[in-house]
Amino acid sequence: MKAAFYIGNKNFEVRESSPIAPAEDEVRLNIGYCGICGTDMHVYHGAMDARVTTNRVIGHECSGVVDAVGENVQGLEVGDPVVVRPLSHCGECPACKKGLIHVCQNLKFLGLDTEGAMQEMWTLPAHTLHKIPTDMRLDYAALIEPTAVACHDVARARIKEGEDVLVIGGGPIGLLIAMVAREAGGRVVISEVSDCRLETAEKLGFKTLNPLHVDVAEAVYEMTGNKGAEVVFEVSATQPGIDTMTGAAAVRGRIVLVGIVGGRKPEVDLFKFFWRELELLGARVYEAVDYEKAIEMIVSGVIDCETLITDVRNLEDITEAFQALDGNATAMKSLIKCS
Amino acid sequence: MKAAFYIGNKNFEVRESSPIAPAEDEVRLNIGYCGICGTDMHVYHGAMDARVTTNRVIGHECSGVVDAVGENVQGLEVGDPVVVRPLSHCGECPACKKGLIHVCQNLKFLGLDTEGAMQEMWTLPAHTLHKIPTDMRLDYAALIEPTAVACHDVARARIKEGEDVLVIGGGPIGLLIAMVAREAGGRVVISEVSDCRLETAEKLGFKTLNPLHVDVAEAVYEMTGNKGAEVVFEVSATQPGIDTMTGAAAVRGRIVLVGIVGGRKPEVDLFKFFWRELELLGARVYEAVDYEKAIEMIVSGVIDCETLITDVRNLEDITEAFQALDGNATAMKSLIKCS
Repeated sequence: MKAAFYIGNKNFEVRESSPIAPAEDEVRLNIGYCGICGTDMHVYHGAMDARVTTNRVIGHECSGVVDAVGENVQGLEVGDPVVVRPLSHCGECPACKKGLIHVCQNLKFLGLDTEGAMQEMWTLPAHTLHKIPTDMRLDYAALIEPTAVACHDVARARIKEGEDVLVIGGGPIGLLIAMVAREAGGRVVISEVSDCRLETAEKLGFKTLNPLHVDVAEAVYEMTGNKGAEVVFEVSATQPGIDTMTGAAAVRGRIVLVGIVGGRKPEVDLFKFFWRELELLGARVYEAVDYEKAIEMIVSGVIDCETLITDVRNLEDITEAFQALDGNATAMKSLIKCS
Repeated sequence: MKAAFYIGNKNFEVRESSPIAPAEDEVRLNIGYCGICGTDMHVYHGAMDARVTTNRVIGHECSGVVDAVGENVQGLEVGDPVVVRPLSHCGECPACKKGLIHVCQNLKFLGLDTEGAMQEMWTLPAHTLHKIPTDMRLDYAALIEPTAVACHDVARARIKEGEDVLVIGGGPIGLLIAMVAREAGGRVVISEVSDCRLETAEKLGFKTLNPLHVDVAEAVYEMTGNKGAEVVFEVSATQPGIDTMTGAAAVRGRIVLVGIVGGRKPEVDLFKFFWRELELLGARVYEAVDYEKAIEMIVSGVIDCETLITDVRNLEDITEAFQALDGNATAMKSLIKCS
């Protein structure tokens, strides 16, 4: 079988590799599609070489079909279509003991800390799999992982019907959050600087604001009769985005922190947290329940997969796929067809 | 009657003033005691001259007895002992319409934005008053306002029995939070740099940590079996305190922001919010329910008023009282005896 190895310096090498027989608690998948995540792009840029190392198969936003099943695995059969929740928890730390396994203090992320999905076949722990409907398209199913991120973020926000929601950042995760938040009853506005992304957001039926042209916080207060947004998702990972999140939030507003600013610690307007009794909620990956919700969101058509998937290439063309996506404002989600 | 007017430049002038007859929805109080708040100390230092102006009677942490009642006031009679919840909300803004009157978008704070309590008699809206038991000491009752702050902060934190709690900052508000949090079931540790305040904290039965000698975040992780504190109160209003609040918090820890850092916006480790799914909760003043809880906390002896009250002076000596408190690490709560 073929596998794509990250060899450093913005390059992958697609080589022959041997399928691995599943151990007793493992399953081997035929990978259908694997999406390129922002984190994969960081790997491509060499920013995660210390953690990922080179000569590793990365990728975690995948769909596939069960190809072989370890002897202790129950509830899964050869031929079942599945998606992967790529988390490996320790089971021993204080967080795991509270049942918060997705924020395990020793969490390993499959496809970064271990081998991943950008290969024809992937052998991995059975507990990471969620079955999907047999008639679900495997390309759409590759969007379940990022949609589960969005479902987790929206669940953290506790959105109620009719609440005003601001999403700061209109990339793939921002748009997925916007769609899930709208389904939860939110009246969603998206803030984004790229014209292409604004166009996509509008095509998906969202009101938009461009911070290059308006003061987004002021505009949100005006649009909401001086109330502000009950919920803000900060997805831009920028200092201006962090300034806007506190500026646009209503009294007792909930701000969900999705984007991660690298480098030095950002400055945060803590005075506004005091003055308006704001709430900041960190959100990391997803729980099992978010995966089930994400499957439902895609099956029911709440997520417009057709608009989000802007590029599909074969495994052999993986380096070109990363090149084409890198810094491309017209692109949303690129998929690699793995087998 | 006598009243103490703030005249700027670290000075008060105690002058004769005329008692004001209450309007139909007002009450006139004989003020018993009025505590000196950190905010009053800011006024004394001239830092709030633009808001407070000079020639104003300040003060809001007070107890008193009803002296006269406006014709539309119900439920209050001459002779009733009371305390003041010194907030005036507009009733019209989006926050008020949601019932969040303590974070009214046009909130006025009595004793800063209006005349206050540091006078023999104070005429003010009846809706601000809470009755207290007739046998309650009026000096202890002057601690109800800051205790209500602590009750509000602890309510925001949603403390559960047996949770580990870190209070960063061991001044009057920090110690009140610690006592209320302990009553709520928390296992409380106090971080503080001043030896005098550490001594008071220990006298009150708390474990302490001195950040001048230990890394508080590391120490909390060690003390809790690598779990961290489920609840952190940031009361120090310092950049090191803000660094410690994220460092010491457990996975899904709730951080209540009590201290307000002046000047530039502080740097916050937002990565830890993501990594551990932390929660930051702004907290501002109090609601009616916090006052009722605070009265109960003082009546039942949960709050050690005797230890907290370190100075009592007559109204005539108000400038000396502020001088004696200013920068005095051995002092906790100073009261002015107003009549």
